[in-house]
Amino acid sequence: MNTFVLKGNIIYSKDKTHLKLVRQGYLVCENGISKGVYRELPEEYAHMPLTDYGDKIILPGLSDLHAHAPQYVMRANGMDMELLDWLNTYTFPQESRYQDPEYAVAGYEQYVRALKESATTRACIFGTIHSPATLLLMEMLEKAGIRGYVGKVNTDRNSPDFLREESAKKALKDTREWVAESSRRFQKVKPVLTPRFIPSCTEELLRGLAEIQKETGIPLQSHLSENYSEIAWVKELCPQAKNYADAYDRLGLLGSNGKTVMAHCVHSTEEEMELMKERGIFVAHCALSNTDLSSGAAPARTYLERGIHMGLGTDMAGGYNISVFRAMADSIQVSKLRWRLLDESKKPLSLEEAFYLGTLGGGAFFGKVGSFEKDYEFDAVVIDDSRLLPPHMLDLRERLERIIYLSDERDIAVKYIAGEKIV
Amino acid sequence: MNTFVLKGNIIYSKDKTHLKLVRQGYLVCENGISKGVYRELPEEYAHMPLTDYGDKIILPGLSDLHAHAPQYVMRANGMDMELLDWLNTYTFPQESRYQDPEYAVAGYEQYVRALKESATTRACIFGTIHSPATLLLMEMLEKAGIRGYVGKVNTDRNSPDFLREESAKKALKDTREWVAESSRRFQKVKPVLTPRFIPSCTEELLRGLAEIQKETGIPLQSHLSENYSEIAWVKELCPQAKNYADAYDRLGLLGSNGKTVMAHCVHSTEEEMELMKERGIFVAHCALSNTDLSSGAAPARTYLERGIHMGLGTDMAGGYNISVFRAMADSIQVSKLRWRLLDESKKPLSLEEAFYLGTLGGGAFFGKVGSFEKDYEFDAVVIDDSRLLPPHMLDLRERLERIIYLSDERDIAVKYIAGEKIV
Repeated sequence: MNTFVLKGNIIYSKDKTHLKLVRQGYLVCENGISKGVYRELPEEYAHMPLTDYGDKIILPGLSDLHAHAPQYVMRANGMDMELLDWLNTYTFPQESRYQDPEYAVAGYEQYVRALKESATTRACIFGTIHSPATLLLMEMLEKAGIRGYVGKVNTDRNSPDFLREESAKKALKDTREWVAESSRRFQKVKPVLTPRFIPSCTEELLRGLAEIQKETGIPLQSHLSENYSEIAWVKELCPQAKNYADAYDRLGLLGSNGKTVMAHCVHSTEEEMELMKERGIFVAHCALSNTDLSSGAAPARTYLERGIHMGLGTDMAGGYNISVFRAMADSIQVSKLRWRLLDESKKPLSLEEAFYLGTLGGGAFFGKVGSFEKDYEFDAVVIDDSRLLPPHMLDLRERLERIIYLSDERDIAVKYIAGEKIV
Repeated sequence: MNTFVLKGNIIYSKDKTHLKLVRQGYLVCENGISKGVYRELPEEYAHMPLTDYGDKIILPGLSDLHAHAPQYVMRANGMDMELLDWLNTYTFPQESRYQDPEYAVAGYEQYVRALKESATTRACIFGTIHSPATLLLMEMLEKAGIRGYVGKVNTDRNSPDFLREESAKKALKDTREWVAESSRRFQKVKPVLTPRFIPSCTEELLRGLAEIQKETGIPLQSHLSENYSEIAWVKELCPQAKNYADAYDRLGLLGSNGKTVMAHCVHSTEEEMELMKERGIFVAHCALSNTDLSSGAAPARTYLERGIHMGLGTDMAGGYNISVFRAMADSIQVSKLRWRLLDESKKPLSLEEAFYLGTLGGGAFFGKVGSFEKDYEFDAVVIDDSRLLPPHMLDLRERLERIIYLSDERDIAVKYIAGEKIV
């Protein structure tokens, strides 16, 4: 089933700053794993079924390293607010709706449909505090063929009554049960530990989550250094911590090398960056969200220079757009304004770098994902960009640039995840 | 024909900072002119044909104060460059293609179709230096029912041979002929004088254009203080001018109160702003383009505070998106980053302010346009936002916010321009 050859115009990242562009090349998939890209089809693969996508463009699937599924249906509302006001006015009341199973079905159906229709093949997703709704979301994603991680959110303080777990003990018990049930039921979608952020979790809860992580080895996602008021609040709550990341680290939450993803990291200090690098943290760079909520412009160039792991996040719905292509464009845009307005020593991200971040950079969090090199899991999107073509000829890089800035779900012809045809 | 009543959810700007929101209201059009919005339909209009748009949203048509029609087909290409490199590498070769009538038809067809399908009802547009192609563009827009201004571009220095007018004399002769012919042939689309910018026009040419303006009274459009290198170049070319705007003013080009629109004004100084205000210049604020070309973030808040005329421009294709809704969103986004990164004394634009700029603010350049108040020209777009609705109820302001951030041409059900049904 998952063994075949695709023919078309193939583009993927050779490394952080170079694209591999193959006009009318062959892309081989064997049991859901890439066997590489060829200008001529090797004899050994000649027997495989071949699909010729003509002049269409074939890209690796995109990875969304940070999204809140329950917020999809409130995207683009409350955009005139900063983080903490926006959470209290819009986000918390919105998430509490998912206590109602009927609302959860309706809300998550919209998100999963949009995600399925997008170019995203892997995602790291926040649910809500509600285990039933979170299991429902995982079931829908599993059915849709999307792969990645989903987290039942933990929060036992500084949240409204209608969106707070009863106690740390109860939260940990529920989380253990949810981890066990979801690990048993789902193959494509896996659980990820998800404390919302330091301000909304007691020390008891966070220590308990660190224990669960040690026992199970599952990854962890949270938020880090997004907004000035939030950072000041963390400092107040954890006076002993050297910085925001250290507040997590002291409780054992950054321990699992390469299995922790932290969203935003907009205002990380030198010291915090060193700790992030040491612990192998993945940064989910969410440029649109950081603009929407007036948080700032993350030092993405610095993270790249230092070799800190990084991918892109839509931060649905701090970010209002579900497309990781748009996240690529926004990461470039914000880096340009950051360069012009804040720090001319850090040059803007290039097209190549933004594409890398949305494919290979973020894909690395999920394993060997985000490339067509040999042995990578076979995630691919076939783009029909005919709607975007001008009267004159474009080369492949120019067509990729237009896809990144201009395409939407209408232009995605076919999507494969781990060799499985999804759309 | 152009006398009727529309029923639906009506939203327009009461002033710069307040929306008028009327659920299930009546909007009256008599001979292409608005007679106002009513909660109950007055007896005197009861005999008019009524169209009930149900739960759809009715907004004033949007105004695009700055766009380059020939660049539409190259939008989103060359986005890793700054202004002057981008002009030389992409824009000038692209515009030279419009010398070929066959290319001009194909290229302008794409632009006019997209403009027609958008929510834009009025636009101020650059063509190229070619009179035949510019007349063709005007003819297509006239047929499509779009209203506004189109300019044959003038440039007689510092441009490549393939995109430069032979001499100032010839340029002025051609411009006079083109003004005469287009004024005679078209009713909805009018000519606007269009020197590209100071660096590409000799003094002789600019003085000649000022004379044509005095004789004909037609408006003028150009570029002002967009990019640091450009500003330095103008200073070098016009050492006697106090600033970039003054360089135009000395040649008599800012003389026509309320009939000059200048794109960008990103880096205008105190002195320049005073001159802009004094001369009644309209600023075309092009937030996306200023980000794309790393130009900076224009001081839109300051222009609002000082009562300088301002509307929004897509700057197609410095900006890659033709939608003025997107221009509204981007004007907010850029103002947030400007506030956070550059100047916390200038608070970000609100939704109300951005909406005002895209309707009434820019509409004022075209006359009484951009509002549903009595005596305004009847430009309206009917939005079917059902694709964007969540499972929970939204109020009208929340629906408008989603339309601004999320809608595209698929959501535009009907468009009226000066009372004429276009789409």
